[in-house]
Amino acid sequence: MNIRSSFEALDKQFTAYGGLEGGGITRLLYSKEWTRAVNVLKETLEEDGFTVNFDDIGNLTGRLEGSKYPDETIVSGSHIDTVVEGGHLDGQYGILAALTAMKALKEEHGQPLRSLEVLALAEEEGSRFPFAFWGSKNFFNLADEEDVKDIADAEGIEFERAMQDSGFNYRQQDNDFNNIKAFVEMHIEQGKVLESEEKNIGVVNGIVGQKRYTVTLKGEANHAGTTPMGLRNDAVVGFSQIASQLTERAREIGDPLVVTFGRVDPVPNTVNVVPGEVVFSIDTRHINQEALNQYAEEITQTIKNVAEKEGLEYDIDLWMDEAPVLMDEHLVEKIEEAANEVVGESKYKLMSSGAGHDSQIFAKYVPTAMMFVPSINGISHNVEEETDVEDLVKGIEVLKQVLYELAYKE
Amino acid sequence: MNIRSSFEALDKQFTAYGGLEGGGITRLLYSKEWTRAVNVLKETLEEDGFTVNFDDIGNLTGRLEGSKYPDETIVSGSHIDTVVEGGHLDGQYGILAALTAMKALKEEHGQPLRSLEVLALAEEEGSRFPFAFWGSKNFFNLADEEDVKDIADAEGIEFERAMQDSGFNYRQQDNDFNNIKAFVEMHIEQGKVLESEEKNIGVVNGIVGQKRYTVTLKGEANHAGTTPMGLRNDAVVGFSQIASQLTERAREIGDPLVVTFGRVDPVPNTVNVVPGEVVFSIDTRHINQEALNQYAEEITQTIKNVAEKEGLEYDIDLWMDEAPVLMDEHLVEKIEEAANEVVGESKYKLMSSGAGHDSQIFAKYVPTAMMFVPSINGISHNVEEETDVEDLVKGIEVLKQVLYELAYKE
Repeated sequence: MNIRSSFEALDKQFTAYGGLEGGGITRLLYSKEWTRAVNVLKETLEEDGFTVNFDDIGNLTGRLEGSKYPDETIVSGSHIDTVVEGGHLDGQYGILAALTAMKALKEEHGQPLRSLEVLALAEEEGSRFPFAFWGSKNFFNLADEEDVKDIADAEGIEFERAMQDSGFNYRQQDNDFNNIKAFVEMHIEQGKVLESEEKNIGVVNGIVGQKRYTVTLKGEANHAGTTPMGLRNDAVVGFSQIASQLTERAREIGDPLVVTFGRVDPVPNTVNVVPGEVVFSIDTRHINQEALNQYAEEITQTIKNVAEKEGLEYDIDLWMDEAPVLMDEHLVEKIEEAANEVVGESKYKLMSSGAGHDSQIFAKYVPTAMMFVPSINGISHNVEEETDVEDLVKGIEVLKQVLYELAYKE
Repeated sequence: MNIRSSFEALDKQFTAYGGLEGGGITRLLYSKEWTRAVNVLKETLEEDGFTVNFDDIGNLTGRLEGSKYPDETIVSGSHIDTVVEGGHLDGQYGILAALTAMKALKEEHGQPLRSLEVLALAEEEGSRFPFAFWGSKNFFNLADEEDVKDIADAEGIEFERAMQDSGFNYRQQDNDFNNIKAFVEMHIEQGKVLESEEKNIGVVNGIVGQKRYTVTLKGEANHAGTTPMGLRNDAVVGFSQIASQLTERAREIGDPLVVTFGRVDPVPNTVNVVPGEVVFSIDTRHINQEALNQYAEEITQTIKNVAEKEGLEYDIDLWMDEAPVLMDEHLVEKIEEAANEVVGESKYKLMSSGAGHDSQIFAKYVPTAMMFVPSINGISHNVEEETDVEDLVKGIEVLKQVLYELAYKE
């Protein structure tokens, strides 16, 4: 079978469920478009000879039973929901890549020794309701009724009602995931590292840890004309020194450390008043917990030093502190070998993921790894999200090789 | 007569016109409170033996005719309007100080050789209607119907209607200001230089020139997790470098140069997106035109350098460019002599004004000078605006001495 034409047909078909006129998809959890997509996927899997199963909340698996080790299951997939006005690849590509690769393997090599499963997780984005990873968390018996019973979407529709209207319900019995020997998630990079380095495949060795802060600096609001520089306690000057110094330090420390000052709100925010206050955000990420902690120390110290020097009061609120999640070393090696075989050593890159993915939930329970294909100009969560079809095909070919190694080899 | 009790009585009386419960005044141009204040001031001046005159738009003068050189007039005063929820000293103090000083001079020394005039200018703040210096500009035949015919206040009341309702009208004939030999404006500092240096009097040698800019930096909005530092074009990082570097340079150059980055608006202004754009303001002031221009050069060059280094596009909009206004050297000397006599050399300071005042209009047409008294904690344009009454009295005593030298000496 032709991988490219097979994938393109599936992609075209499924992009229609929630598809937008100018391209892209809006396919929110338990919406009509979502319900249509999961049900058509179920039929498609059945037609292709997979044994299908919905769990209670709507995670869908399509299984090819193993001939020799049926209780050892190799799973690949991703989430089927999208953000509002999202692209056609974020999540969907991981499912259709798994389906295409497994179909091709079955056609070429027949029944696998171990069981193969396509997995379409119900939800990852947290875009309709204020709860993310509903799919993967239920998969590992983590999320439940308490977490969502009081939440509603932007139109006021309650989570429970939306779920039941689309034919699903709270988890009635726990999943058994002990037979899963590997989970491999294929995803678009959502960044432009691969593109800028002209690589076809990213082999993900971990998902970064991140810390997010809200920092408040308080000085004194004063007349911009009558207050000499020496009599000022200018909060924006303090911010600008902190942001400059910490950016410079992050550049010195080097990849994969990142730091972002995305939000800056001075008070009163007007041209002729020395700003007496500023509230700003810091978002910093690194794949290594120790390196992240060390940089966090520098953040605190820099704020303290600048505040002291500029005569400012400061408050540092660390409101998110997520640990890095490492991928399974053995699986990463397998993927590297496959990538080496399919695209060559110079065309893949071992890298961390700066964004969160279902794999970070999986990695705590089962051997997990991820693969990226390049995102054109790094764009995602946007209808302009795109990847060169050649790269999409190469991704599927690497995934196929990985799954072959995992499910067809003794 | 007792200067302190005389001034305090006047201050208490006039603070009632527009006076607020918790202190301070809201007395907007052509409002009922304003109309009441100017009419009571007219009566007060008449009772005190001044010959009063309203010009067409509502500037009020109270005149003590000179015995020997009646056509040489020495004028002192300020504006009678306030900002919304302003203090009781900004403007009002300059009028009541002139009235108190002239009353005391008349009582002690009788008729002056040259004519003395108290001046209450109708408006300076631009707080009710979007037009400032209506009083002083009409005084010098500058503003007219064209400038205000299309403007209204926040409640939609047209300028012309408000003016006519309070009994005034557009200028019907030009003022003759050729007989004015000196204008001395007494004002609160609205900063905290005098307070911090423990001075009683500021002798103003000029009003600073100022340049105001709106600067836009454009980079690229990116995912804060998936975009390595080296692949970013972060507009806020650019801003922070520009603000840090230009602040450091301003500190090196030293007083009276000031620079303020009062407004900062990043886009999209959210924690997990590398900001692709930022719009910010620069307000810079100096008493010396050449020094101001040199620093403006550094502003442009710094923005250019940082933008180049950080891969940002930039746009610099210089939307205000006002030249410094120097006070009359001879008058400044006279005031220094008087301050030296009344408070002593160590208690007055020769300084520039960082804020705009009516005097900047006057200085172009007649010999003009200003005096400051300290503002407690630098606060003004606020009901908390206050000055130690001892300082208010010292200010009046210095003004009295200046007016004596100008109007009673051959």
